[in-house]
Amino acid sequence: MDGTKGEVAGPLQREGIDSGDEFIVFLPDGDGSPGLPARTRVRICVGQGTACPREAYATVYVGRCGGAAGIGVSESLWHALAPRAGEWAMVKRTPPPASMAWVRATMLGHALPAEAMREVVGDIAARRYSPIETAAFVAASAHGNLASREVAALTHALIESGFRLAWPGRHAIDKHCIGGLPGNRTTPIVVAIAASLGVTMPKASSRAITSAAGTADVMETMAPVVMDAARMRRVVEQENGCVVWSGGLGFAPADDRLVRAQRELDVNAPAHIVASVLAKKVACGASSVLIDIPVGPTAKVRTREEAEVLVDLFAQVADDVGLAVRTLVTDGTHPVGCGIGPALEARDVLAVLHGDAEAPADLRERSVQVAAAVLMLSGRYTSEIAAREAADHALTSGMARARFEGICLAQGGMREPPRARCVQVVHATSNALVRGFDCRMLARLARLAGAPEFPEAGVRLRVRPGDRVEPGQPLLELHGPSMGSIESAAGYAAVQSDLVRLDHKEGAVA
Amino acid sequence: MDGTKGEVAGPLQREGIDSGDEFIVFLPDGDGSPGLPARTRVRICVGQGTACPREAYATVYVGRCGGAAGIGVSESLWHALAPRAGEWAMVKRTPPPASMAWVRATMLGHALPAEAMREVVGDIAARRYSPIETAAFVAASAHGNLASREVAALTHALIESGFRLAWPGRHAIDKHCIGGLPGNRTTPIVVAIAASLGVTMPKASSRAITSAAGTADVMETMAPVVMDAARMRRVVEQENGCVVWSGGLGFAPADDRLVRAQRELDVNAPAHIVASVLAKKVACGASSVLIDIPVGPTAKVRTREEAEVLVDLFAQVADDVGLAVRTLVTDGTHPVGCGIGPALEARDVLAVLHGDAEAPADLRERSVQVAAAVLMLSGRYTSEIAAREAADHALTSGMARARFEGICLAQGGMREPPRARCVQVVHATSNALVRGFDCRMLARLARLAGAPEFPEAGVRLRVRPGDRVEPGQPLLELHGPSMGSIESAAGYAAVQSDLVRLDHKEGAVA
Repeated sequence: MDGTKGEVAGPLQREGIDSGDEFIVFLPDGDGSPGLPARTRVRICVGQGTACPREAYATVYVGRCGGAAGIGVSESLWHALAPRAGEWAMVKRTPPPASMAWVRATMLGHALPAEAMREVVGDIAARRYSPIETAAFVAASAHGNLASREVAALTHALIESGFRLAWPGRHAIDKHCIGGLPGNRTTPIVVAIAASLGVTMPKASSRAITSAAGTADVMETMAPVVMDAARMRRVVEQENGCVVWSGGLGFAPADDRLVRAQRELDVNAPAHIVASVLAKKVACGASSVLIDIPVGPTAKVRTREEAEVLVDLFAQVADDVGLAVRTLVTDGTHPVGCGIGPALEARDVLAVLHGDAEAPADLRERSVQVAAAVLMLSGRYTSEIAAREAADHALTSGMARARFEGICLAQGGMREPPRARCVQVVHATSNALVRGFDCRMLARLARLAGAPEFPEAGVRLRVRPGDRVEPGQPLLELHGPSMGSIESAAGYAAVQSDLVRLDHKEGAVA
Repeated sequence: MDGTKGEVAGPLQREGIDSGDEFIVFLPDGDGSPGLPARTRVRICVGQGTACPREAYATVYVGRCGGAAGIGVSESLWHALAPRAGEWAMVKRTPPPASMAWVRATMLGHALPAEAMREVVGDIAARRYSPIETAAFVAASAHGNLASREVAALTHALIESGFRLAWPGRHAIDKHCIGGLPGNRTTPIVVAIAASLGVTMPKASSRAITSAAGTADVMETMAPVVMDAARMRRVVEQENGCVVWSGGLGFAPADDRLVRAQRELDVNAPAHIVASVLAKKVACGASSVLIDIPVGPTAKVRTREEAEVLVDLFAQVADDVGLAVRTLVTDGTHPVGCGIGPALEARDVLAVLHGDAEAPADLRERSVQVAAAVLMLSGRYTSEIAAREAADHALTSGMARARFEGICLAQGGMREPPRARCVQVVHATSNALVRGFDCRMLARLARLAGAPEFPEAGVRLRVRPGDRVEPGQPLLELHGPSMGSIESAAGYAAVQSDLVRLDHKEGAVA
C-alpha cells in the first residue's frame, strides 16, 4: 500500500460483495487510510504502464474485510476490470465529469445544445457518472418541456454512444410496443409474417424490466436469443428476420444506464421513451419503424392525451434522425391472449402460428393489425386492405409458421417452452360477470409466481372479459417452479379484489 | 437466519464498513440469501415487539465478510440504529415512499401543492429516500421555473420537518451571507455589535461544506459552539446574542439531506438557497433577517442578474413565511481580511474587535455595513446614518469587544485560536501589480493546507489588490499541521497562475 493524499496503489482484491450495478472500491481504514473518505469518487486503473489500459469510475467505501490491506472491489467492478492474478490497481480521487456542468444547466431549466448532449451521454456510456449523477440527469431531462430538438439531440447522442448495424441493400423495418399490456406478444408473430413475405425485420428485443416477460424472454423459451451482431446478421440474411436479445449487441450503452436509473426512480418520461426507443431502432439499422401504443387505464399509457404527446414526439424526433415512423394507438384495456410469463406467452404465440382452434383470437388479430402496418411501411403494398389480407394469409397458409421455425433453427435450434411443475387454479366463488383485469396487478402476480426468472412461471387466464362465471369455475391458473412461489402469488391474488373485476350484480341477473 | 421471500431476520452485526452517509445492509449470499438482490431498498427494524421501535431505510448489498450469517450494517446505520448487544434485526423489502409520485410529477414539470411538498420533505427528513431519490428531487426542484409559491411551500415544509425556537418578548434578528468570499467573517463582529446595543441575535451557523471555514468553525477556535437549544437560550437571554453551531439544534433535518445531495451534485439553485436559508432562520426564531449577497466573478453569485433573481425570490418567499427580509448586494470581487481558515479568520475578527492598528479595514467596513443594516431591521434606528454611527461606535468604544467576550464566556469559555506548526511563505518572483485573487482557488488552497479539518490551517494573504510587489516579496503564507499538507498546497499554488492575478507589465512600469 503506497498512498499520498488523494491517491493510493495496491494489489487488487475481490471483496466478495455484490453491490449490483454500482462500482464500489473498498479501501483500508485506520492507519492505512489514504485520505480518501467514504463516498469519494475515484478513478481506478488496472494494467501495466502509465496508459491505464483498463479503468473505471467508482465510489469509495472505507473498511476491508478482516482489516485487509490492498484495494478491494465489488463484484461488478471486479468483472468490469477483469484483472489478471496479482495485478495492482491505482485509485485516484476524480472530480465530477466536466459534462455535469451541462446537467446542472438542465436542472436550472436551460436547453442543451447537441454537443453538450453528446458529452453527457458519452460520459454516461463510459460509466463516469455516479448513480446520483445519472439520476440527476434523468430527473432534469424528464421535464415535460424538453424541446423535441433536445430529445432528438439525446437520441443522436445515444446512437453515437454505441454500436450500429447496417443492412446494405435491404429496407429494414422494426416495431416497438410501449408495453404495459400483459400477454401482448405480437413480435414473434409479426416478424414471422413479415419475413415470410420478403420484408426484412432484424428484431433485437429486451428482457423484462418490470413486466412478467420481455420479448427476448419469451423467444428464449423457443430458441436461443443470445448472440453477437455477426451471428444475428447471418440469421437475417438467411431468413429475412430474427428475434434476438438486444443486450448482446452493444447498442446504445448509455441507454442501459439511463433505463436503470429510470427504473430505480420509476419514471417514464415521454422524452426518455422516445429517445430510447428510436436510438435502439436506428442502432439496429432500421429505416422504418412501427410504434404500437396501447392505451388503457392500467396500461403504461393511460389516456389518449398521453398517447398523443408520444405520437407527436415520435414523429418529430424520428424525422430528425431520419427514420420513417408510424404510430398505432391501440386498445390497451384488457390483457392479450391467455398466458402471462415467458413460456405461457410462447404457447399463445405458437398456437396463433399453428392456427390452433383454441389460439387466442385477440393476439391473432393484434398481430395481423401490426403486421399489416409493417407491410405498409415496406412500400410493397398499396392499400391497408391488401396488406392485411397478405398478413392474414401468411398465417392461414402456414407460411409464417414455417418461417418462424426457420428463424428458430437459424438462431440455434427450436425448442419446446418449459412447463411448470406446480399449477394452482383460482376459482370463482359466486355468480358474476367478468368485467376485466388490472394489467399492473396481473404482471405483479405473474412475477410473484416466479416469472420471468423461472420461464415456466406466470399466470394463465381462464376467462375473458364479458364471460359469466359460476361458483367453482376456474378464473385463472398460477404456474410456478415451487409451491412456495405459487402460495406467494395465491396470497396476493386472494387480497387484490381488483385483479379480476367481477360484477356480482350482473352475474346474479344472468 | 430466518427468511421468506422479501424479508429476513437475524442478529444485527457491525460490518465495519464506512459508507459515509448512505445506509447499507449487508446480507449473506449463497444459500443464506433471502431473495433480496443487491440494491433492493429495505426497511430495517431493531428492538422488541412488533412496534419496530427503531427503524431505518437502507440499501442491500449481498455478501458478508468471511461468509458470516446474520445481518451486517454499515457504520452510519449501526450508529443510527444504536442496537443493544445481541439484538436482532428484521429486514424487509420496501417500495419507494409514496411521496416519490410527487417527485416524478416535479420531474415532468408539474407544480406541487403545499401538502405534496410536506410529504416529500417529511420522507426526506425521516431518511426514507435513497440517495438517488433525494438527488432526483434536488434535480427536479432546482428548475429555474419553480414558482415562488412552490419555493415557499418547500420552505414551510423544511421548517415543519424539525425543531423550532421562539423568543417570546424579543425581536430576534438573523443574518446570512450567500458566501463564496474567503475571509468574509463578519458574523461574530455583527453579533457582538448588535448584542452590545440591545438587539437580539441568536445566531446558529454552519460548518464549512465546500469552503475553507464556516462561521461555526471560526467561532469554535475562540469558544465552544456545540450546544443544545436550552443552553443556547441561556446564552442569548444573558448576552442578547450567540454564535453556535446549527447542527446540534435539530433545525430542518430535511435540509441537511438536501444540502448533502446539492453538494454531491455541485448545484446551487436559487430555489434551494432561498428555501434552505429562510427555513433555518424561521426555525431559529428570527422575525427579521438580513441577507448579504456578495457578487463577484469568482464568488458564489457571479453576476448582478443572478443576484437580482435571489433578491426577488428572497423577498417573495420571506413574505410568505412571515419574515421581514432585507437584502444587501455587496462587492464580492476580492477576498476579505487576511486570513482564510478557521483560526486565521478568527484572528482577523479579534483584530477588528480589539481595534488593532493592523486589523483588516475591509472586514471592519463590511461588518459595520452589515451591522447597520441589522440595526435598521430592529426598528430602533430611524436613519441609516444613525445606525452606522452606532455600529461604528460599538467597535471604537470597545463595547462590541466586551460583549463578544461575554458571549464566549457564556458559551463555555473564551480561548486563543490555535497557531499552525508549519508556515511557508510564497514569494513574488518578479515586479508586478497585484490585480486580485481567484476566490475559489484560494478556498481550495486553504483546504489543501488542511482547513477546516485542522482549524489552525489555511492561507494568510500578505498583499492586497492594488499593491505593487518586487521579487522576493511575500505574497501569501500557507499554514498547516504538517509539511506534507503545506507541500500539497504549495504544489497547487505553484501551478495555478490565476490564484494571485499579477500584472507584470504594470509592475515593470512602476
